[in-house]
Amino acid sequence: MTNTSSPLEALPTNIKRRLFGLKQLQAKHAELELEFHTEILNLEKKYLNLYSPLYTKRTQIINGKAEPSEEEVEAGKKADEDLAQELAKKQEEDPEVQPSGVPEFWLTVLKNHIQLADLITTRDEAPLKHLVDVRLVYSDDKLGFQIEFEFEENEWFTNQVLTKTYYYQPSAEVGDLISERSEGTEVSWKEGKDLSVTVETKKQRHKATNKTRVVKRTVPTETFFNFFAPIAEEENSSADEDEVDFSDRLEADFEIGEALKQKIIPHAIDWYTGKALQYEGFDLDDYEDFEDITDEDEEAEEVDDSEEEYGTSAPTNQPAPECKQQ
Amino acid sequence: MTNTSSPLEALPTNIKRRLFGLKQLQAKHAELELEFHTEILNLEKKYLNLYSPLYTKRTQIINGKAEPSEEEVEAGKKADEDLAQELAKKQEEDPEVQPSGVPEFWLTVLKNHIQLADLITTRDEAPLKHLVDVRLVYSDDKLGFQIEFEFEENEWFTNQVLTKTYYYQPSAEVGDLISERSEGTEVSWKEGKDLSVTVETKKQRHKATNKTRVVKRTVPTETFFNFFAPIAEEENSSADEDEVDFSDRLEADFEIGEALKQKIIPHAIDWYTGKALQYEGFDLDDYEDFEDITDEDEEAEEVDDSEEEYGTSAPTNQPAPECKQQ
Repeated sequence: MTNTSSPLEALPTNIKRRLFGLKQLQAKHAELELEFHTEILNLEKKYLNLYSPLYTKRTQIINGKAEPSEEEVEAGKKADEDLAQELAKKQEEDPEVQPSGVPEFWLTVLKNHIQLADLITTRDEAPLKHLVDVRLVYSDDKLGFQIEFEFEENEWFTNQVLTKTYYYQPSAEVGDLISERSEGTEVSWKEGKDLSVTVETKKQRHKATNKTRVVKRTVPTETFFNFFAPIAEEENSSADEDEVDFSDRLEADFEIGEALKQKIIPHAIDWYTGKALQYEGFDLDDYEDFEDITDEDEEAEEVDDSEEEYGTSAPTNQPAPECKQQ
Repeated sequence: MTNTSSPLEALPTNIKRRLFGLKQLQAKHAELELEFHTEILNLEKKYLNLYSPLYTKRTQIINGKAEPSEEEVEAGKKADEDLAQELAKKQEEDPEVQPSGVPEFWLTVLKNHIQLADLITTRDEAPLKHLVDVRLVYSDDKLGFQIEFEFEENEWFTNQVLTKTYYYQPSAEVGDLISERSEGTEVSWKEGKDLSVTVETKKQRHKATNKTRVVKRTVPTETFFNFFAPIAEEENSSADEDEVDFSDRLEADFEIGEALKQKIIPHAIDWYTGKALQYEGFDLDDYEDFEDITDEDEEAEEVDDSEEEYGTSAPTNQPAPECKQQ
């Protein structure tokens, strides 16, 4: 506790009494504030219900289950004149390759958000192309919210839905709902498809016998799908450092959850086109670890040449601190 | 506008149509979101009314108009055991210097908030000791909020209340109430007491005649009270830079307004004791421009030795870019 004026303990007794009086008023205030924040959470639930038909329609368009009417297209052009201008150039139509819905919609959305882009490696992109929907869900019996990632059938895992649930707890002291913990679905990886590990093989020679053997090591590997793993699992630092680290990582994890809830899910089309970056005030230049990748780099990396890559989405094949020997 | 996947204009026409369809859904969503944010603003007004009797009582205690009861003091000790422990040391009572209320309450509160402390110079502290109340006010006919700073009579200015009003405007695009502009009371400085200028005198010698003369320059000077002056008033950079600068400074100005509204006014006692710094997650070490000042420094600066100073509260007698010659 710091105080920039005189030390609190040096204050005369009658001022100390008044501070406790003020503190008692603060405690009553905090009770009311908790009610206020609970009312806001209820408002959020009410509006999620109102948004819901719009989200259903959106999911249908993205996944090729519905097409917008002419009137809706015209209304959309009026709603975003920048976009209308950008898309004005007519394309040659090739009836044989007409895609259904909006391909790679959610992958593009997630990659346009700085913190999420940081989580997505090149290896993650293929499974994330199978994302069908990302949605917000409230449950009545839990204080918090859940993000559901729905996938179509794919070669990586069997889960149809991966969820991440964020729990709040009411703080009487702060008068607010504060971050408590988060919880994710365990990914059921198909045989040999686990993106959270890389298998390394190494030849070793016995010093005395000179015989060689092959050792396989499963090395924990960065992947977007660690977003669903418990926080602080692979930590082996000292107890004190661990605690600081844990609270920092919990905060970063909640920031991503709040971004999905408040920004990305409500305004997904603007994240797809990149417009959200403007009104969120993101300045890509501020993020020095993002670099432009030239065409040569792209060819060298042998990625689909219809896509540009973030520098941070490069493969992360560096061994993590903890390695298991098999 | 950026897009990390293929350029938008290269998309097939049917995908472009779908994007406009999604955009039209987004526009409908934004209409609902605006209603949501308006409902939150109404909730804030409702709760301000509920908090109001607590704030009245607080102001009375701070200014020596009321004393907490024994029960209230005991409840306050239970509400903040850290504080109870810190204040447990008994003080010698000196009946002749029994102060009324809690002296320098609001000055101490403001100096414990990093961004506000940055605005407060040593010269500002004496007038800020006359702060009687800092409060939040909503007006029904304006979209926004007002912070009122009430002062007792003092030797610096004649205003009893200095106000700062923040205006929002509804954005149909973002679906939110966004920062528009702020407006402050003009300070009616008493003769020779204007803290926003410093008068410098300079002796000059005429090159030809060798005569000397005394030139007085009124130099704009940093002061907390510039918080009430229009933003961007003293800017003379190029038009483009100015626009960027202006929006940055408007954002910083709104951040201070929101901090006063959401954090400082509701939890003033915790900012006075310093407890708020803990639960707001402020780490003073992060602010490298704050330095501990030794006793010697303080004596050298000839400041009241009952107070510690922030490094940034040092007098700012450097001339600002624009100077008027008199």
